[in-house]
Amino acid sequence: MAGRGLFITFEGVEGAGKSSQIRRLVGSLEEDGVSVFVTREPGGTAISERIRELLLERRHRKMVSTTELLLYAAARSQHVAECIAPALEEGRVVISDRFGDATTAYQGHGRGLDLELIHRLNNVATGGLVPDLTIVLDVPVKVGLGRARRRRRSMDRLEIENLEFHQRVRQGYLAIAKQEPNRVTVINSRRHPKRVHGEIRDLVNQRMSS
Amino acid sequence: MAGRGLFITFEGVEGAGKSSQIRRLVGSLEEDGVSVFVTREPGGTAISERIRELLLERRHRKMVSTTELLLYAAARSQHVAECIAPALEEGRVVISDRFGDATTAYQGHGRGLDLELIHRLNNVATGGLVPDLTIVLDVPVKVGLGRARRRRRSMDRLEIENLEFHQRVRQGYLAIAKQEPNRVTVINSRRHPKRVHGEIRDLVNQRMSS
Repeated sequence: MAGRGLFITFEGVEGAGKSSQIRRLVGSLEEDGVSVFVTREPGGTAISERIRELLLERRHRKMVSTTELLLYAAARSQHVAECIAPALEEGRVVISDRFGDATTAYQGHGRGLDLELIHRLNNVATGGLVPDLTIVLDVPVKVGLGRARRRRRSMDRLEIENLEFHQRVRQGYLAIAKQEPNRVTVINSRRHPKRVHGEIRDLVNQRMSS
Repeated sequence: MAGRGLFITFEGVEGAGKSSQIRRLVGSLEEDGVSVFVTREPGGTAISERIRELLLERRHRKMVSTTELLLYAAARSQHVAECIAPALEEGRVVISDRFGDATTAYQGHGRGLDLELIHRLNNVATGGLVPDLTIVLDVPVKVGLGRARRRRRSMDRLEIENLEFHQRVRQGYLAIAKQEPNRVTVINSRRHPKRVHGEIRDLVNQRMSS
């Protein structure tokens, strides 16, 4: 699209370092005078944040996987229409902490829901919007969960899922990267955060100049 | 399915008389010793009721139609899995105030969203469950809205939509009944409630004996 901004998404298992790498990237882009819009999923709008609360509440253990899938799609639909699409039309760099691939990895590979159905729902929710660049921060699940546990006192509904679930999610992200190598780049996030940031910044620079 | 109960849904525009006709039907069935489970959409479970709140809040005017569609599907998915399917398996009569046809009528015919997409989302949400009998209570839109307005002090987000919208919804219900005459029966709800109830009770008796 002419005059369109750049849409970058960060993905990865819990504790992969998404938040801190996003902070670093935003800082370095803003230093260069780039206008950045940062957001996250599920969430990003008042309506989507309400849906996020619903999804993460521990007392909603009765939630069936199809409900979860549809709620993620609903939050995404609002997020795209109200925030992401308008910011991209203004030519900004939009960075989202998780997007459609998270549904493919968590609900598809993690919970075993039909991948074709997820693909179609993602399409409905995004109106066909696909990120220009997706960075999968990859760490072994035990390392990631250990980091996430140290950070917070309590864990939300998704974090208390078992280890095998999170391992399927990680493999799911790697499978997505294999299928779409032009869009998705896997970065080893077990190394020093500065080095990880350097690689990310290089990738973003490439996309911005192309 | 062997040992399965009977699933009856009530549909119609605002003020068509669904609530009062459901009360009459439940009363007469229970007098006959039939075990009835009554529910409504959107809602019916704790999670679905939370989604219902989100859908009906007036301050959520920014909600785009795709988000709305996906939220209805999410509420329905939870409703079927947690309430309707288990009650039917126990052999009960389940009566729901609105179900999948409401999405077809309101979001499809009313808002002009893709009917094929709605059909697929309904299928995802219901896991393929289709009512045994659907009763469309039909009144002219102005009569229905007049009734609904008198009943409440304030109107929710859907009720403040314009008249043409509600007229498209009514036509949508009539179109569904034409397409699926074996499942869907249109009943003129402008007549005396006792007469309307009598017709409904006859229909239900037919289904129960078949």
